[in-house]
Amino acid sequence: MSAPRPRDTGTEMDDTLGIVRASVTLEAPLALECGRTLRGAEIAYESYGRLDARRATAVLVLHGLTADRPAAGARLPSTVRPGWWDAVIGPGKAIDTDRWFVLVPAALGGADGTTGPASVDPETGRPWAMRFPVVTIADMANANAALADTLGIHRFAAVVGGCRGGFQVLEWMARHPERLERAIAIGATARTSAHNLGLWSVMRQAIRTDPRWNGGDYYGAAAPDAGVALLAMFGAMFWMSRETLEARFGLARADAGPPSYGFAPEFAVEHFLERVGKGAAGKLDANALMYLTRAIDYFDLARGGAALSDVFRGYGGRALLVSYASDWRYPPAEIAALAAALGEAGVAARHETLSSAFGHGAFLFDPASVGALIAETLAA
Amino acid sequence: MSAPRPRDTGTEMDDTLGIVRASVTLEAPLALECGRTLRGAEIAYESYGRLDARRATAVLVLHGLTADRPAAGARLPSTVRPGWWDAVIGPGKAIDTDRWFVLVPAALGGADGTTGPASVDPETGRPWAMRFPVVTIADMANANAALADTLGIHRFAAVVGGCRGGFQVLEWMARHPERLERAIAIGATARTSAHNLGLWSVMRQAIRTDPRWNGGDYYGAAAPDAGVALLAMFGAMFWMSRETLEARFGLARADAGPPSYGFAPEFAVEHFLERVGKGAAGKLDANALMYLTRAIDYFDLARGGAALSDVFRGYGGRALLVSYASDWRYPPAEIAALAAALGEAGVAARHETLSSAFGHGAFLFDPASVGALIAETLAA
Repeated sequence: MSAPRPRDTGTEMDDTLGIVRASVTLEAPLALECGRTLRGAEIAYESYGRLDARRATAVLVLHGLTADRPAAGARLPSTVRPGWWDAVIGPGKAIDTDRWFVLVPAALGGADGTTGPASVDPETGRPWAMRFPVVTIADMANANAALADTLGIHRFAAVVGGCRGGFQVLEWMARHPERLERAIAIGATARTSAHNLGLWSVMRQAIRTDPRWNGGDYYGAAAPDAGVALLAMFGAMFWMSRETLEARFGLARADAGPPSYGFAPEFAVEHFLERVGKGAAGKLDANALMYLTRAIDYFDLARGGAALSDVFRGYGGRALLVSYASDWRYPPAEIAALAAALGEAGVAARHETLSSAFGHGAFLFDPASVGALIAETLAA
Repeated sequence: MSAPRPRDTGTEMDDTLGIVRASVTLEAPLALECGRTLRGAEIAYESYGRLDARRATAVLVLHGLTADRPAAGARLPSTVRPGWWDAVIGPGKAIDTDRWFVLVPAALGGADGTTGPASVDPETGRPWAMRFPVVTIADMANANAALADTLGIHRFAAVVGGCRGGFQVLEWMARHPERLERAIAIGATARTSAHNLGLWSVMRQAIRTDPRWNGGDYYGAAAPDAGVALLAMFGAMFWMSRETLEARFGLARADAGPPSYGFAPEFAVEHFLERVGKGAAGKLDANALMYLTRAIDYFDLARGGAALSDVFRGYGGRALLVSYASDWRYPPAEIAALAAALGEAGVAARHETLSSAFGHGAFLFDPASVGALIAETLAA
């Protein structure tokens, strides 16, 4: 059985490879945590592999902060770059597309096809920009549950994600506990932290400081590329550990001669950051970054003072939590506390702490060990 | 004997308290590491206490990245805020101004009275701005040695500093070994790191992104306050450890009600960062921040491949190195390696690792324990 064929236009597919890149319009209005309602939301997604007749082989994969499609690098005509999880998703890989139907939606509030600030507000005919409602991680989970409804998938064999995707996995366990058999959350704590709140706050300020941002109304004009570049450079300093930067760049300079004693990039790490900034400018939408980071700010599973274990009482599936010893932003100790709460709630939870020089980004940049854990969990 | 009376104008003093705030013009040209020569450099300084007849009681105190005068909060008419090291410098304190003549110069390349990019280039009559030569930590040490010459101080009982000041202490040991009896370097490694290089690089980019920076030529016009504010907010995320931010702010919000689901500052840590930004804007000079951070970029005591121990062969005094267990940017292990190199060079070096929640900023924000170590070292 092929993947369900979505109704709307823009669908791109390769039936031989079993790949679909499409989007659906949600029929039901989406009630958001902020109290506002989003009508006619579109959810863009990719799928890899084929759904079985019982629709029991679906695996939902949720991306990190920004979608950066494709998830796997299989060639569709619109594929212009490698997949962000090529090492994990594909035939014979940890998430084996010969066995699983892998659904990878783009986040609500982003700018990769799913409705967000770059989309046109149907009521005004203009881009939402900063008039788009603030969405939360739970809203994103609800939007994806609605996508699953549309595609006729009631229950996922697994819901898998890292970073923002990992938070959403936790919301799936809390809010849609009957709809997944396995939860795999990587580098995800039960709530955000003061450090994260500060980090995103400064990153958003980098966007605001670029005059081209213009309060968010830059669509159709020059985009705030300098602000986005700065945000990405700033982010790189947090994604990469001090040790990694030291091992990779040290004090190396591009030229072997004496120092130039100037301000032009001279050290290898400066050239690296320059590339990071140039790579992000024009690729990431500034307003989407505002909304995606704000969603994490409001992430707190036990909000309202609930015991964390109570949040998971309804969940009867398994859980795999993965932390990285070098991920100081989402420390193993906090993820161990989450695993303990799952245990208290009677959930069969496994917590593994992996080693990697890549810290929080290890699931993307050093995916072999997490892939093995995912494969084990999907086989169990 | 009173402090030597400097020649130039602008001197402010209180003979009862033994406080001088003044600046001197160096007669000899200052040869810089970059190959350029600075003529007529002014060095602004404060001094506390009185120099004894043998001029043997002088202690040189070197500030962190930015001067933020005064060093001690004793009241001169121009004193508008507390001293940055009030807890350490003063009568009866760790650096006892009843016993020591404490000299605190502002760094070359800064904007606190000592010649830097905000100063007027005598050859053009215009502010140097980014035409000022790149200065190094060694240049700063040489400038302060020239200041000492001018004031008639050949030898310091101690040279003391944290962060940038600490680097300069190390350069004093390496380049002026006969001119100090005790070296006290706090939170200072033997070279900068890839992480620091990246951090300063992004901070300078924050300034460049503000259109008001205008390539550095903003004197007499609106200053790039937004860029400086952003730089300071970004810096705060590195100065303060994740643990400190978490303990101090957590997810606290200003209002007890439900979340606002908006972008206005709502969490306590957002309000804190907003205050940090507003506090820096208008107080720190953007170009000075460019130069002071670039000086650290080029800091590498063993440059040219020298063994670190060889750098210190000429030094016959004592050394106290202080690290903070929570200072992940200047880790105790690297400072221990520096202490080992000093030991190899035959220097009587003591390395103490202190506990503080404040990380690299602990010598400023949690000064009691480092003060006790300084007092011990000055008494020995």
